Amino acid sequence: MDRLVGIARQWYDQIADGEIPSISLPTRTKQNITYDDATEVWKYGEKESTRAASTARSATHLLKMAYTIGFLKEQLLQNRSSTLREMYYISESWKKAKFAAQDESNYLVEDLEIVTHVEREAFHLRPEEDGASIFGPLRLRETTRRGVREIHCRDDVGEAGYSIPNNVGNVDLIDHDAKFVIAMETGGMYARLQENGFDEEFGAILVHLKGQPARSTRRMLKKLNEDLKLPILIFTDGDPWSYRIYASVAYGSIKSAHMSELLATPAAQFVGVQPSDIRDYDLPADTLSEQDVAALKAELTDPRFATDYWREQINLQLSMGLKSEQQAFAARGLDFVTGEYLPKRLREMGVV
Amino acid sequence: MDRLVGIARQWYDQIADGEIPSISLPTRTKQNITYDDATEVWKYGEKESTRAASTARSATHLLKMAYTIGFLKEQLLQNRSSTLREMYYISESWKKAKFAAQDESNYLVEDLEIVTHVEREAFHLRPEEDGASIFGPLRLRETTRRGVREIHCRDDVGEAGYSIPNNVGNVDLIDHDAKFVIAMETGGMYARLQENGFDEEFGAILVHLKGQPARSTRRMLKKLNEDLKLPILIFTDGDPWSYRIYASVAYGSIKSAHMSELLATPAAQFVGVQPSDIRDYDLPADTLSEQDVAALKAELTDPRFATDYWREQINLQLSMGLKSEQQAFAARGLDFVTGEYLPKRLREMGVV
Repeated sequence: MDRLVGIARQWYDQIADGEIPSISLPTRTKQNITYDDATEVWKYGEKESTRAASTARSATHLLKMAYTIGFLKEQLLQNRSSTLREMYYISESWKKAKFAAQDESNYLVEDLEIVTHVEREAFHLRPEEDGASIFGPLRLRETTRRGVREIHCRDDVGEAGYSIPNNVGNVDLIDHDAKFVIAMETGGMYARLQENGFDEEFGAILVHLKGQPARSTRRMLKKLNEDLKLPILIFTDGDPWSYRIYASVAYGSIKSAHMSELLATPAAQFVGVQPSDIRDYDLPADTLSEQDVAALKAELTDPRFATDYWREQINLQLSMGLKSEQQAFAARGLDFVTGEYLPKRLREMGVV
Repeated sequence: MDRLVGIARQWYDQIADGEIPSISLPTRTKQNITYDDATEVWKYGEKESTRAASTARSATHLLKMAYTIGFLKEQLLQNRSSTLREMYYISESWKKAKFAAQDESNYLVEDLEIVTHVEREAFHLRPEEDGASIFGPLRLRETTRRGVREIHCRDDVGEAGYSIPNNVGNVDLIDHDAKFVIAMETGGMYARLQENGFDEEFGAILVHLKGQPARSTRRMLKKLNEDLKLPILIFTDGDPWSYRIYASVAYGSIKSAHMSELLATPAAQFVGVQPSDIRDYDLPADTLSEQDVAALKAELTDPRFATDYWREQINLQLSMGLKSEQQAFAARGLDFVTGEYLPKRLREMGVV
């Protein structure tokens, strides 16, 4: 809250000194986003833009920011929370500071994250999106609005598992009996590993990513890696869009470049489906579409995929012209993926 | 399993009698789906089509059905389960009975549901889609692959709530302290009611529908209504697509007409956002798009909306040309929806 209010305090001081109030922010264009080799995540570069209240347009922008800071301060004082959507609607009563669209208020919240170096969850702003599910040998403690809950993610939950809350900051990992975490793109594979007892046999914590993972899911994976020192394995379909799921977990995304250090898990490893798996296991496959080919070619110039391994795999896929889903392993029987593919692949990767 | 194998047994008998094996099914066209006034759900009419193995095409169809029955029988014998997607891939090894696309195998499974009068969950076929979440004064018992779990949906879960499993048949509702169930379209509203303590103050079980509700969510609502005799209230955005969410919970959908009696909850009631709420509360609203107008007009001729109430509301909306989201109530403050709107509306509806 201090950091938030500090922004307004700075404006106050500027006005008191006879200056025009202003705020400086990293320029948020693609040209100013760079891949940081040391931390292995995307970050904003050094270019800054300054917004001063010397035009009506910029003054309105600062006014909106002031109202937002005031709203968030009240919310924190009262220990309330709200969704990004609710905040947009609340601005209805802010007269000239009313947001024209939710994009505008979302963007402003990102600006506040950048200036304060605090994520929006700490302002008690919730996304609409849901967190994913966890099933496996993990005991955690969640501080909820109705008290503290201690939950074992296998013994105390139903088959759908433990649902990750919006604010992972409220979760403490207490205890576990796992050797690694395996996060899956599809619910079908999550249920497959659970049904086949993969978690018990291999000491695995199973995570269902639910497609492109929400921020809370990425924070939970980072927490599992950092707090428990567990390897994080990502198991997706074998197509360019799924490789981006892996990359967003491991390296962050351009959209949330300002939060990469909080959200990315550079130690995360890609399991598959690898293009070489499509070949080696003769998996049922679909032909790459034009969009697939374009996405694969874009990945060849993406710094996150600038390794020999990825270049080789992506070029192999382009030459085969094929993609496969993770559930395609079922063509070899329902036990193939847990009995043969994964054990062999995890030995190869040095995980088991 | 008897009913499944019975289909194959009938073919065997037909062949033994020198007949061409065949199967009869209700004709699955829109013309043959009728709204049943007595049970208030969509059902197939009396038209039947017979498929006999007298052409190569129909013979292949029966062959695929035979392979599918064999696969499901094995699965049931071994107490295994699989996703619809996995079954499609498994057919890779069925030679001439291999499915050309997943649409084909899904459709065949629906045929089996129709013939056997048993839902696919009983064949241990899982969908990819997830169930929704529950939070509130409800204790249930879920029989999972790892044993029986007794879970209180407020005291034993995190803030995200209890996740409904794919197969609601494994859940028993044991105990509750609720007066009604309120199911919401958006996660934002689900979290709002939870944060504002609406469940405790009004004795409400909160359900997050996650948009168009999955089959398991609809089954759970039906179960809450039938087993616990609780009123089911549906709270969505105020647009034609959201009214369809309500209608699919209450009356079933054309797509799953054959399962309506198992999935629909005719006693479910619509809370809002009503077009008259947009007017009465002067809610922030968007202009109806052409698609919205067309969808509203289609609802005027939909038997599920053939009541004075809906005709009045839909005509009002068409004349205003506006739609509002449920979170738009936040324009009047974060407590308005739980402190004023819902109590007033539920009194009006006779629920509290």
